[in-house]
Amino acid sequence: MMRLACAVVAAVMVFCCSAARADEGMWTFHGFPIAKANATLKTNIDQAWLDRVRQSTVRLANCTASFVSDEGLMLTNHHCVESCLAELSSKEKSLVEEGFLAKTHDEEKHCQTQVADVLIGMEEITAKVDAAIAGKDETTANDVRKATLTQLESACEKQATQKCQTVTLYQGGQYWLYKYKRYTDVRIVFAPEASIAAFGGDPDNFQFPRWCLDMGILRAYENGKPAKTPNFFKFNFAGPAVGQPVFVSGLPGSTNRLLTLAQLKQERDLELPQWLMRNSEIRGRLIQFGHQDPQNERISADLLNYTQNFIKVRRKMVETLNDDSMLARKAAEQATLQKMIAKDPKLKKSIGNPWHEIELALATERGLFEAHTYIEEGAGFQGRLVNFARVLVRGAAERAKPNSERFREFTDTALPRIEQQLAARVPVYPDLEQLRLDQSLERMREWLGPDHPLVRKLLSTESPAGLARRLVDGTKLADPAVRMELWKGGAAAIAASTDPMIVLARAVDPDARAVRKAYEDGVEAPVRSATERISRARFAAYGTTVYPDATFTLRLNWGTVQGWNENGAPVEPFTRLSRLFERATGAEPFRIPDSWLRVKDKLDMNTLFDLTTNNDIVGGNSGSALINDKAEIVGLLFDGNIHSISGAYWFDVEKNRAVGVHPAIIREALSKVYGADGLLTELTR
Amino acid sequence: MMRLACAVVAAVMVFCCSAARADEGMWTFHGFPIAKANATLKTNIDQAWLDRVRQSTVRLANCTASFVSDEGLMLTNHHCVESCLAELSSKEKSLVEEGFLAKTHDEEKHCQTQVADVLIGMEEITAKVDAAIAGKDETTANDVRKATLTQLESACEKQATQKCQTVTLYQGGQYWLYKYKRYTDVRIVFAPEASIAAFGGDPDNFQFPRWCLDMGILRAYENGKPAKTPNFFKFNFAGPAVGQPVFVSGLPGSTNRLLTLAQLKQERDLELPQWLMRNSEIRGRLIQFGHQDPQNERISADLLNYTQNFIKVRRKMVETLNDDSMLARKAAEQATLQKMIAKDPKLKKSIGNPWHEIELALATERGLFEAHTYIEEGAGFQGRLVNFARVLVRGAAERAKPNSERFREFTDTALPRIEQQLAARVPVYPDLEQLRLDQSLERMREWLGPDHPLVRKLLSTESPAGLARRLVDGTKLADPAVRMELWKGGAAAIAASTDPMIVLARAVDPDARAVRKAYEDGVEAPVRSATERISRARFAAYGTTVYPDATFTLRLNWGTVQGWNENGAPVEPFTRLSRLFERATGAEPFRIPDSWLRVKDKLDMNTLFDLTTNNDIVGGNSGSALINDKAEIVGLLFDGNIHSISGAYWFDVEKNRAVGVHPAIIREALSKVYGADGLLTELTR
Repeated sequence: MMRLACAVVAAVMVFCCSAARADEGMWTFHGFPIAKANATLKTNIDQAWLDRVRQSTVRLANCTASFVSDEGLMLTNHHCVESCLAELSSKEKSLVEEGFLAKTHDEEKHCQTQVADVLIGMEEITAKVDAAIAGKDETTANDVRKATLTQLESACEKQATQKCQTVTLYQGGQYWLYKYKRYTDVRIVFAPEASIAAFGGDPDNFQFPRWCLDMGILRAYENGKPAKTPNFFKFNFAGPAVGQPVFVSGLPGSTNRLLTLAQLKQERDLELPQWLMRNSEIRGRLIQFGHQDPQNERISADLLNYTQNFIKVRRKMVETLNDDSMLARKAAEQATLQKMIAKDPKLKKSIGNPWHEIELALATERGLFEAHTYIEEGAGFQGRLVNFARVLVRGAAERAKPNSERFREFTDTALPRIEQQLAARVPVYPDLEQLRLDQSLERMREWLGPDHPLVRKLLSTESPAGLARRLVDGTKLADPAVRMELWKGGAAAIAASTDPMIVLARAVDPDARAVRKAYEDGVEAPVRSATERISRARFAAYGTTVYPDATFTLRLNWGTVQGWNENGAPVEPFTRLSRLFERATGAEPFRIPDSWLRVKDKLDMNTLFDLTTNNDIVGGNSGSALINDKAEIVGLLFDGNIHSISGAYWFDVEKNRAVGVHPAIIREALSKVYGADGLLTELTR
Repeated sequence: MMRLACAVVAAVMVFCCSAARADEGMWTFHGFPIAKANATLKTNIDQAWLDRVRQSTVRLANCTASFVSDEGLMLTNHHCVESCLAELSSKEKSLVEEGFLAKTHDEEKHCQTQVADVLIGMEEITAKVDAAIAGKDETTANDVRKATLTQLESACEKQATQKCQTVTLYQGGQYWLYKYKRYTDVRIVFAPEASIAAFGGDPDNFQFPRWCLDMGILRAYENGKPAKTPNFFKFNFAGPAVGQPVFVSGLPGSTNRLLTLAQLKQERDLELPQWLMRNSEIRGRLIQFGHQDPQNERISADLLNYTQNFIKVRRKMVETLNDDSMLARKAAEQATLQKMIAKDPKLKKSIGNPWHEIELALATERGLFEAHTYIEEGAGFQGRLVNFARVLVRGAAERAKPNSERFREFTDTALPRIEQQLAARVPVYPDLEQLRLDQSLERMREWLGPDHPLVRKLLSTESPAGLARRLVDGTKLADPAVRMELWKGGAAAIAASTDPMIVLARAVDPDARAVRKAYEDGVEAPVRSATERISRARFAAYGTTVYPDATFTLRLNWGTVQGWNENGAPVEPFTRLSRLFERATGAEPFRIPDSWLRVKDKLDMNTLFDLTTNNDIVGGNSGSALINDKAEIVGLLFDGNIHSISGAYWFDVEKNRAVGVHPAIIREALSKVYGADGLLTELTR
């Protein structure tokens, strides 16, 4: 699945823009080339169309959704509601496995950690940011830039009830303030069983042909009632024809299409391989844990799916970065820009040699990488409980500071979301917590070494397993009331706490802050300064003919329904229901759920099931509706083909394909399998 | 630990020789530069010294050992006898954990899968091999070369009771026939507890300072009695001084110091990362399996140690290959040789452009790699039982052919060792078998894809876990009598068998043979042909001033006792007993066994424990005695420091250090901790 990675915005890893080819391009709504789109596609979309599409599109915490009725009904993917289903499950009963259908509004259940945001306003603030950092050295500029963004967000939120977030585009070429209508009461309405939503499981993930009903339906509530949402998409159940123009409005999470060569190499050699080793081991532990008994399998399924998805993504990213021809293309792009700068003495003077500065910063990064990853980023402290503890400890210290001096993730704008997560009554499974904390502590000891000061501080008399057991058994943080009491109690409550997980987090925090500071000053600040200049040069050269890299903010792109050629053989862009039954083995992950087997004879085996298009999407776009030029839903994107993973670095026009659910199978399933007549009525009225 | 990897001689991965610097060099006994060594070290060793050292050195199946008495007593590492200890253990009692001491010969227990070889003769056969392949195209030459080596081995074995094995040096620059005295009755005499043998476990593995008593003692038997071994090393318990010349006679397993740049890149980008991902997952599964209960932990400890060791090794190999300066050095070496060839038209004509040929072959390899790895090399079929089945199925078919037409691992010379392993009454643990087979089948399905023909053949109606369970539960191959009956019954017995594991192996074998054939013809043959020519050029240019790459054949090298500088601070070459007690946490892997705690007051805390030298060694050298110029034992090598892992590709004279046990702690432990007075008497008489 095309999941959004946890940390969508790792500051130094979000980069710039590229000159767009063909159907490529993740365009902002304020920079969308309407004329070019209409000319290419022979369509007639206009600003009103764009406004309507924008306000029908929803940013979830981890995905995209679309309004599909005027009563707040939202269509997204099953894998986007999976964590909600898991939170509503127990050891004994899994809604992920069993699926869910609310027959009435009363049966719709609250997704406690979900939010739904609609983009209602966009204001450019580039000049304000540039003015604030003018003349500052790069370390100071890095701090001042963050403080300025915090101040602008706070000022914006004081004016209204809207949610305000700043957005960095073109790596500093533009700054924007985005204004959202936020729904914090989001409820689950429908989800099919995981075995049909993700038929083929990890083996078929990122493959095509596919037969996945990867859909989920949520509803936004306001004041305890279904929200009024006049902007929404209607379904066109006939779906699109081959070659038909289609649009995707959604939130691509992160692309790195203009990293320098040195940065690509660092990602290939350092970050990705370590992540893959670490998570391959976690995968092994989770699988074995699940094999111990069915309850274990149930409580770890969500995390295992997440882990396996990103293993596939990242190993394909490494493959992409090992492709010499791709690197050669990047080198040529870099050289072209460098030549352009060299020709213009004034530009050259203002740009300097940012590529060399980045190389120096990356050398610093190599020395800090393991400590930063394990200590500050938390690879050494995995699990819900320890994460709660770290947020509580750090949050208490940060909230004691003036808003603009805090870490950006603890500004006033960010606090309500943190509180929502701390207060959520989500299940915590001690055995799973034990597994994760033990594993991460053990690997931290390996990578930092037994003689690292923090390792000695934590593990001089205990084994990782022993320490994890003591903390998980002793902490009370599984109780949201305890968490909220500590949160509200602030620094004093944290200082007084004897909860062993809080004690651990207090011990870790100074070391984590130290390595973060070293990282921000030694890596982030110089890379940000250098890439801003690269970006400025690029922006000057290519202007608005380029699109910014993805940043989990709203984008629109176009394409057409089409397959591709694999080893010389064409891959058709549609699958049909009949082949699902041929492919099934009866064993997971190729098992068709009983609900389908029971009604098999009634189903139309010719029903179109999944489809592919050449839209330029990445993780974060999951759940995006595929719409036609009438803004009707003709598909529901949930994945890309295997070649789409290279989209992190470039758009492979020949082979990169988005994969979606066909609307025909949605109707067939809701009607004949799930008897969701009320839902179908709402979708079609 | 400096373990020898399972497949020491992957045909295309064993390469050539380099111009030796300083103390670098893994010299053969027939090519040892005595004069240079004596001049460098100010010693007076001679041919008689070399002969005695050679005949005192023992090749084990997986390590090096040395005779230490005239009654067949052999000193090696604990981690070299660990598999023997595991084979003699059960779910309930682990000799790996508890250690072992035979107070009398009668208590010495048979290591059923171990052998001990002493090199007694060496004959060059280069001219014979060259004559056989002269004028043949590369694919035919590849086949004929193997057939010729098989014929020479068989002819040699017919002449006497000796074991004969051909050795390829300088990647075809030289071929040799090595003759061994083989002991197949090897028994365990002594091993300390794993917690002191590998104190610090995986976290401290390849680190220094260290406190490991990584020793084990075996005895060779002949005709049911201790073997007569007039050549042996005496101990010098005082040990060496800093800077003292020391020698290592042993069997370095494999180095790749002269891969072409393209080959290095392929290893870095393809082979090593896939191995690391696969085995990181296995590590996770084994750790979680062990956490389920103490019996599981006991039965999987040996495999987990092995896996973790190679994860550390291979991740450091990747780091080495990501070091630009190392690659630049390799590029310069390659360019120098290419220039040398270009200057000599006759040489140029005979050499051609082997580097380009290798690049083409590597492109072919990329297309075959996953299928070859999972199907033929068995990454998709892990576990003792399935391995037995595959050996039985293939062995039956191969033995039906004339000797010289068989796969090299099934020639007459190889059969006795296979039979020894099939007949060995070693424990088979169904739950561990299930874990390994399930995991490997599942990963094969991921990497080859659910639509690969073999995957469909095996898994069209069963899950990997279900298939693994059915095979492990249904097979009788855990019984050595059943295995031997099938082995003796040959092709007819295999064809008639309904044992489900044999049925599986029969289904897999045609696919495995097909991919092996494609690999041998498309990759191995052209790479072998090309590297032989590179090697010939190099051999012509540098002659006998170079040493061949390691091939798990007997080598001798020299060095001195010394530490190194780490980040500007000196690391002393000796550790002492006192610090062991300071480092202990009480929890594994930093737990001192009770046997030591009980006698703590009697121990001399100043006793030297471990030491470092700058000898050039790699995995396979484990268990090698460190000897002085009087051929006295002054240490027992068991590891290298972290920098030694780069020794796969080059010798880092500044930082590459071998790590050994000091003889003083051996005496202290045998005497005061283990009360092994009989053993000490034998070692000192």
